[in-house]
Amino acid sequence: MKAEDFSLAIKQFQDAVGKEWVFTSNEDVELYRDSYSPVWSEEEEPIPSAAVAPDGVEQVQAVVRIANRYTIPLWTISTGKNLGYGGSAPLLGGSVVLDLKRMNRVLEVSDKNHYALLEPGVSYFDLYGYIQDHKLKVWIDPPDPGWGSPVGNSLERGGGYTPMHDHFDAVCGMEVVLPNGEVMRTGMGALPGAKTWQQYKYGFGPYVQGIFSQSNLGIVTKMGIWLFPEPEAYLSGRVMVWKRSDVMPLVEIFAHLVSSGVFRGTSTLASPVWFGPPDAELDPLRASGSIKDLEDYSARRKVPYWSLPLFFYGPPKVVAAQWEYAKEKFSSIPGVEFQDGPSYRFPLSTADLAKIQDTVPLGVPSLQIFSLLPSRSQGHIGFSPIIPMDGEALLEALTLFEGVHRELGWGRAVLTILSSFPRAFVIIDLFPVERDVGKNRRMRELYRRLIKEAAARGWGEYRTHTTFMRDISNTYSFNHSALRRFHETIKDAVDPNGILSPGKCGIWPKRMRRAEV
Amino acid sequence: MKAEDFSLAIKQFQDAVGKEWVFTSNEDVELYRDSYSPVWSEEEEPIPSAAVAPDGVEQVQAVVRIANRYTIPLWTISTGKNLGYGGSAPLLGGSVVLDLKRMNRVLEVSDKNHYALLEPGVSYFDLYGYIQDHKLKVWIDPPDPGWGSPVGNSLERGGGYTPMHDHFDAVCGMEVVLPNGEVMRTGMGALPGAKTWQQYKYGFGPYVQGIFSQSNLGIVTKMGIWLFPEPEAYLSGRVMVWKRSDVMPLVEIFAHLVSSGVFRGTSTLASPVWFGPPDAELDPLRASGSIKDLEDYSARRKVPYWSLPLFFYGPPKVVAAQWEYAKEKFSSIPGVEFQDGPSYRFPLSTADLAKIQDTVPLGVPSLQIFSLLPSRSQGHIGFSPIIPMDGEALLEALTLFEGVHRELGWGRAVLTILSSFPRAFVIIDLFPVERDVGKNRRMRELYRRLIKEAAARGWGEYRTHTTFMRDISNTYSFNHSALRRFHETIKDAVDPNGILSPGKCGIWPKRMRRAEV
Repeated sequence: MKAEDFSLAIKQFQDAVGKEWVFTSNEDVELYRDSYSPVWSEEEEPIPSAAVAPDGVEQVQAVVRIANRYTIPLWTISTGKNLGYGGSAPLLGGSVVLDLKRMNRVLEVSDKNHYALLEPGVSYFDLYGYIQDHKLKVWIDPPDPGWGSPVGNSLERGGGYTPMHDHFDAVCGMEVVLPNGEVMRTGMGALPGAKTWQQYKYGFGPYVQGIFSQSNLGIVTKMGIWLFPEPEAYLSGRVMVWKRSDVMPLVEIFAHLVSSGVFRGTSTLASPVWFGPPDAELDPLRASGSIKDLEDYSARRKVPYWSLPLFFYGPPKVVAAQWEYAKEKFSSIPGVEFQDGPSYRFPLSTADLAKIQDTVPLGVPSLQIFSLLPSRSQGHIGFSPIIPMDGEALLEALTLFEGVHRELGWGRAVLTILSSFPRAFVIIDLFPVERDVGKNRRMRELYRRLIKEAAARGWGEYRTHTTFMRDISNTYSFNHSALRRFHETIKDAVDPNGILSPGKCGIWPKRMRRAEV
Repeated sequence: MKAEDFSLAIKQFQDAVGKEWVFTSNEDVELYRDSYSPVWSEEEEPIPSAAVAPDGVEQVQAVVRIANRYTIPLWTISTGKNLGYGGSAPLLGGSVVLDLKRMNRVLEVSDKNHYALLEPGVSYFDLYGYIQDHKLKVWIDPPDPGWGSPVGNSLERGGGYTPMHDHFDAVCGMEVVLPNGEVMRTGMGALPGAKTWQQYKYGFGPYVQGIFSQSNLGIVTKMGIWLFPEPEAYLSGRVMVWKRSDVMPLVEIFAHLVSSGVFRGTSTLASPVWFGPPDAELDPLRASGSIKDLEDYSARRKVPYWSLPLFFYGPPKVVAAQWEYAKEKFSSIPGVEFQDGPSYRFPLSTADLAKIQDTVPLGVPSLQIFSLLPSRSQGHIGFSPIIPMDGEALLEALTLFEGVHRELGWGRAVLTILSSFPRAFVIIDLFPVERDVGKNRRMRELYRRLIKEAAARGWGEYRTHTTFMRDISNTYSFNHSALRRFHETIKDAVDPNGILSPGKCGIWPKRMRRAEV
């Protein structure tokens, strides 16, 4: 675009939001770079041209109208903490970052009907603080780091640990600024003076909420989320089995507990002998690939081959009965052992809370995850395919990812198996990103190889870094990418100038679209 | 359209699906009329011009392409049992009914991951039968009458009684024929050879599943639904309170049980003294409107003012602890009494099952509801607003509906209060439809009056009969009906010829659209 037009647009952005909230200097724009970028300092690193931070829906509308006038791509962020997925940087270099951090009002929290109505700039810490200040009896469900935004995280379909762990599933009612600058409310919010905007999701007619998730079709300016009533108790335990093939009944019983609602949360299935931390005695056995050696080690050292943590939230007698039932079911696996974990009664005092290492599963946001991650690199990104909740599929996936890591000389994979969504596993394979172009290029090669290997087996990723959005979109190719073409049809209809987040999840506006299937 | 073109189209439909599956005779078309139509035999009764019954997705595609060629409106039905909402009749007279009843294959049922993949013509009875025949350990969640289609009912966002009661919420993965005749798969189904199409809902990028519910944007030809693993036990009970104002704590505690997941099902909150069956002693008290008289009656006769049934599904010790906890919580209401209801262990023998009057909450479909409905009329339609899960709102709504009924000389309202969706109530006010034009006109007047009265208080309907779709759509008018205009933008983009279900939920294609807000 012409420099002259860009200057005019910046001037108009300043008029709309206030001069101090339009950022164009190099120092300011630098802050919007993705510090975990896998293309750091390479030519393809997408650097924004500016950032604009409106306060309130009218200002968002004004910014969108200006962007339409000058055909300026806007890349929307909430708190910008989406590290591992692009942080605060756009997908398309030169985009103007639409930074919603100033819109950080908690509009309502109900502990009678258990919901919150939030602006996008509210962080998990903000919301938690508000609830504490007002002594409300509800829990939030934070993801690992608590500095992000419930609105942003839910829109990206992230997950936490408590019974409200599927964040998009907990969304109830949105206000959206459409690409033409109009304001729309979804669900019951479409009814003026609605009394159930945050209590009933669907409204009347086609239910549109989903198309604003992982999306470039609108800017969400208000969102309802469902909260969990403060439970009376938390009870945790661990199931340990000793043979590799024990994963079959282990996962089958777990799937039953999940589908029946006896277990409602995110468990992290681990294989301490296979995928645990580096260990002088274990590492050679792992490298040899001998199942028998690992099983022998498991038996000898009393380190479980598979370890499944479970935790239950609710009335004390109910959670006790749930854990007892789970143990009963898992007892069908020969040699299974159980370990009782911590249990708590709520509310916890500040002093009690301070003694607990990982507070996230108790609805208390923290930044502690950063101290737990391997500090081997500048940052990381996750490769995160959805895998059937099935022991065989799990073994196949773990073996595949491990093999590809080894084949490419990347050493041992660090894999996390999570039940963040109701009826499937997501495996997170963490890749280091560096300030080193060569290393990053090799990492991208491995990442792209895994995307293809996974897709060939029918596994697709649930979310990804901006760098790989097109690659992953390309794997969702049924009937000549019918779904993407449908997304594009909607995109062209609602955003004819193609100003909102071009390229997000593989969806480009018409004027930038490549012919490709 | 020209008769000649219509004949050509019929000929082509016959070529596509077989001559015997295109219905044009008066006797045949008569069968597609809505026997519960509130405009029966009036000029505005929408009579289809023909019906066509394809078998398989390719035939659906062929029919859609022909309809595009001749600009013929198609009205899609699955089993056509959507009584009270239009049955098998279209909204627009002259439409061709696209009847999917031949597509009745159960494609897969998993009792390891607890889902089914179904065609639209499968009925709840069919699915139940399949599961029994294959001795699978999963439950379905039937709505009241079991002859309808899980696909159709879920798309209309209907409800049942078990923990899977929110039917659209249980949908996981669709195959859709788009208005241009192309086939698309949603969610993980967009990945060729996907292994988690029925296990993970969202897929990658904007999540589109919702816009095919209560919709005229596509024809769903396959759908995944989540099933409930056969529970070990069912335990039921009833909470009874004696004062009108007891509804405040009663509903507050109930909302807490629902939001915390201790109660997971549809309860039917009743007021036997206020809204129970006609009764010689009670009726004058009801008519007088004296709260005190009704409360006195309640105390004297031991008939509860409010009665709340609860039922729990799961391991025996868990359900016992849940009911015990519920009683503990409700015990804070002075005078509350509890009644233990039936409890069962599963599987039930056929003989045991035969002894149970209402099997629907046990996952066994039936048609028994028809014998329980008031037989005072030819048929009925439901007025069904979503009301906050809150005692005050409930009293306000019940009083309002009762008052409007009385004011219009309609006698006592028959109101059902259901918790069919997670965090709100839906009230069903059943209206009789007759073969009498005058009576139906008066009924429509009352219905339209209630739509307006409810909307003025911020309550909107979740679903309605075709006759009232535009009226209800008009109440969802925030920002000059921004949501409907958004629906229309998508409609025009994906269905430019406007062939699919014109008028559904107030959404008309461009060529038929009235300028109206």
